[in-house]
Amino acid sequence: MAARLQGPRPLVLGLLLCMLSAMGSQGGKLLVIPMDGSHWLSMVSVVQQLQQRGHEAVVVTHEASVLIKEDTFYTLKRYPVPFQKRDLEMTLVSLGRSVFETAPFWQQVVEIYKRIKEHASMLFSACSHLLHNKELMASLMAGGFEAVLTDPFLPCGPIVAQYLSLPAVFFLNGLPCSLDFDGTQCPNPPSYVPRSLSVNSDSMTFLHRVKNMLIAFTESFMCSMVYSPYASLASEVLQKDMTVQDILSFGSVWLLRRDFVKDYPRPIMPNIVFVGGINCLPQKPLSQEFEAYVNASGEHGIVIFSLGSMVSEIPEKKAMEIADALGKIPQTVLWRYTGNRPSNLAKNTVLVKWLPQNDLLGHPNTRAFITHAGSHGIYEGICNGVPMVMMPLFGDQMDNAKRMESRGAGITLNVLEMTSDDLENALKKVINEKSYKENIERLSRLHKDRPVEPLDLAVFWVEFVMRHKGAPHLRPAAHDLTWYQYHSLDVIGFLLAIMLGATFITFKCCVFGCQKCFGKKGRVKKTHKSKAH
Amino acid sequence: MAARLQGPRPLVLGLLLCMLSAMGSQGGKLLVIPMDGSHWLSMVSVVQQLQQRGHEAVVVTHEASVLIKEDTFYTLKRYPVPFQKRDLEMTLVSLGRSVFETAPFWQQVVEIYKRIKEHASMLFSACSHLLHNKELMASLMAGGFEAVLTDPFLPCGPIVAQYLSLPAVFFLNGLPCSLDFDGTQCPNPPSYVPRSLSVNSDSMTFLHRVKNMLIAFTESFMCSMVYSPYASLASEVLQKDMTVQDILSFGSVWLLRRDFVKDYPRPIMPNIVFVGGINCLPQKPLSQEFEAYVNASGEHGIVIFSLGSMVSEIPEKKAMEIADALGKIPQTVLWRYTGNRPSNLAKNTVLVKWLPQNDLLGHPNTRAFITHAGSHGIYEGICNGVPMVMMPLFGDQMDNAKRMESRGAGITLNVLEMTSDDLENALKKVINEKSYKENIERLSRLHKDRPVEPLDLAVFWVEFVMRHKGAPHLRPAAHDLTWYQYHSLDVIGFLLAIMLGATFITFKCCVFGCQKCFGKKGRVKKTHKSKAH
Repeated sequence: MAARLQGPRPLVLGLLLCMLSAMGSQGGKLLVIPMDGSHWLSMVSVVQQLQQRGHEAVVVTHEASVLIKEDTFYTLKRYPVPFQKRDLEMTLVSLGRSVFETAPFWQQVVEIYKRIKEHASMLFSACSHLLHNKELMASLMAGGFEAVLTDPFLPCGPIVAQYLSLPAVFFLNGLPCSLDFDGTQCPNPPSYVPRSLSVNSDSMTFLHRVKNMLIAFTESFMCSMVYSPYASLASEVLQKDMTVQDILSFGSVWLLRRDFVKDYPRPIMPNIVFVGGINCLPQKPLSQEFEAYVNASGEHGIVIFSLGSMVSEIPEKKAMEIADALGKIPQTVLWRYTGNRPSNLAKNTVLVKWLPQNDLLGHPNTRAFITHAGSHGIYEGICNGVPMVMMPLFGDQMDNAKRMESRGAGITLNVLEMTSDDLENALKKVINEKSYKENIERLSRLHKDRPVEPLDLAVFWVEFVMRHKGAPHLRPAAHDLTWYQYHSLDVIGFLLAIMLGATFITFKCCVFGCQKCFGKKGRVKKTHKSKAH
Repeated sequence: MAARLQGPRPLVLGLLLCMLSAMGSQGGKLLVIPMDGSHWLSMVSVVQQLQQRGHEAVVVTHEASVLIKEDTFYTLKRYPVPFQKRDLEMTLVSLGRSVFETAPFWQQVVEIYKRIKEHASMLFSACSHLLHNKELMASLMAGGFEAVLTDPFLPCGPIVAQYLSLPAVFFLNGLPCSLDFDGTQCPNPPSYVPRSLSVNSDSMTFLHRVKNMLIAFTESFMCSMVYSPYASLASEVLQKDMTVQDILSFGSVWLLRRDFVKDYPRPIMPNIVFVGGINCLPQKPLSQEFEAYVNASGEHGIVIFSLGSMVSEIPEKKAMEIADALGKIPQTVLWRYTGNRPSNLAKNTVLVKWLPQNDLLGHPNTRAFITHAGSHGIYEGICNGVPMVMMPLFGDQMDNAKRMESRGAGITLNVLEMTSDDLENALKKVINEKSYKENIERLSRLHKDRPVEPLDLAVFWVEFVMRHKGAPHLRPAAHDLTWYQYHSLDVIGFLLAIMLGATFITFKCCVFGCQKCFGKKGRVKKTHKSKAH
């Protein structure tokens, strides 16, 4: 039974889909305004696929961008900004380091806030330089584009799209402070939809729900530092009053890199399309170097360890604790680490500057994945069915880790508080207790059983928006209501007023009626009495 | 540009999908508990497709069913009921006739209520006879089924599925009184989601919103006549307290025959899959008889007219009015009508007992479609891009007509109040004014531009539920909350209590502080004063 119904074999279908639709098609022109860093890594595959289907993509980015580089399948347009690539890299490294700093809690919060602000200010300045670059904007205006593909994590692309009057497709993992759900007018009940950074699951106790509600209340203030400057910039450039929600509500289709094997089931909207796992590409053969490591690992197999590109080094003491734990398991550990080699590194642990993460995770000898629980890594873990030990560091990583842990597919450790024994025990548990492997394999089967591959779905919707100049039939009328109209407060007020009015009039009529009846009787009785006297 | 990007050619893909997934697959066993009547007409194509993909379907229905008959691609199991097919047909005909009765409004409402109750009672009795048919239920229990495919319009199938502990796929157009959205825990804001029978669009004035809210308030009572007996039956059979919502929330996946070119954009849930237009099959060649009619129509083309299977005849006066209007247009009219031939029927009007509606609508000579706005007909009109004159009669037909009218793709007439001139003018308008044809063709293009054909999508999700024994990863945690927890009323109450408590304590502290300060001063002053005296 297990191998029986193979489903529609999406991979083969994906290829056929490409071949069929490319036949005889003539391409359109797409403007791409990406976010730098890991956000770009998934989007680039969509751009590549679109180019293969005959479209022309122009990618616009600033001169200091870290990961967005020239390539053969798009035209890159760079614009000048008053900072260098190394400045941007430095703010990122400094943000990465802040995780391991051992200052008191509030001091650390203030420090992280300061560094995020510094990084966000640079990116905002880049956006402002793009929108005020008259020559570039004029060339984009005359570029004959049909749509804009953009990541609205920092909403520069959406402003450009509105300025150019082009429909926009948003491609993102999600936005902080529920801005994605505000932007799509998507209901977001705090009773079972855990808020970002709450580390709640969807099954909450009363106190979890109180915490979730408090976060929901404060969300609109929490993100204003980063997002409100974009509202001012949009108002200035578009010559009309704009809020952050106005900017975001411009998206015709939202391609969210989410999936319900990772994320909890929740309300969605018709123009939200889930393309989680889009980064899980088919395995490529390993290089000789990595093939040799895997083959040498024998029956115990290997463990893959990477904390992502933002953490280049770990404080020596912590690195030694980790190295100590890794030395106590029988597996070979491939650790992607660019910091100093810990002096106690065991023989079974190999430090590498880079590793082919997806290809290694797909190898049958891989037993576990130690990850910072970034969304790319989590999906690669799910696709390849590898149980995880998660050490979340920033942003949504805590929530990602909670999701996988609540599904029994991994164990979360606090990287600051964990001991060597904690890591050792967690690794032995996810490798030796069958339930972890079974759960992640179940998630993997569910995740991969879909009618259309996420990459094909993303390409379909970009082309849909290009073909139809947007997707207004998917735009809910909620966008045209004020907040009190949306929540029917005016209607409820009106009905309450009528009810109270009717009750008051009825009461007054009753009182008047009673006075008429009993008042007369009273007077009659009194008259009788006086007469009797 | 128009013909350029052909999209992923879903039809070809659909076929490939079928061929690919059927390769080497071994079928499962599916229990089908359908609704009789037009509801069956779309579902049967899913059953046929599943059989072609190697599955075995067993369809269970009562002995009096009207449209569900023996066929080669499923096994039919019938069970006895204490009424005959003709009794059921009579209640339907009587319900059809009630539309044209000219009694005062309230008398008509009471009459329709009585007839619906009579029809619903027969179907409820059928359900009760199925669930109490020990032999049949035991054979189903031992049948080795993997899932139940059912239409929960009358929720007998969901009770059977729960009794047999089998996951259920619901296949439906929708449920009255928002029961479908209660059953999926789907938010349903009355500020922009028009309620069934409200004839509101999604863009409402204040008074429309008041009407919508009033309907929303009364929905839970309105349907209790038909639905609450099922709750009692389920409680008895399943030996636990069941509400209608409990019965419906059992659905693993809801295949809704809706689409956002017809329905207004609104919140949805992860286990709701839209398969609207599933009944639009590829055109078959016309028979010689109909081909002759179409060819003879010349440059003016034809108009297709059908009020569906429930209306077999129309009062003579109304039929003559209609015949009069039809005689005044230059097109040939093909009118599906089984009543008496109106004496004034013009030469251009042909009465037929049956017509191949979808094939005729797909003919390039078809200029307009006069329809009762049932969902099947509406989708056939959309698929084939034929502007409509709509005469809604029952249930959701008024809402369907409103949707098409609000999109400029047709004109709605009140069949009771319209005059011959109204019909003539409406027909001339939709045929001669370009905007109607342009709008319906735009909707048609949007509707048919999708990554997967609705039939393939429906088949995919039935198989998904069979493969994975349900779809628990798509079930929102909202199902585990009480209504006040869902709306966070307990949390809001708790936070309000804390706020009020804190305010009260702060106020008391201030008062106490003031008394301490000013009280002392006052006393000191008094003392000074008395000393001074």
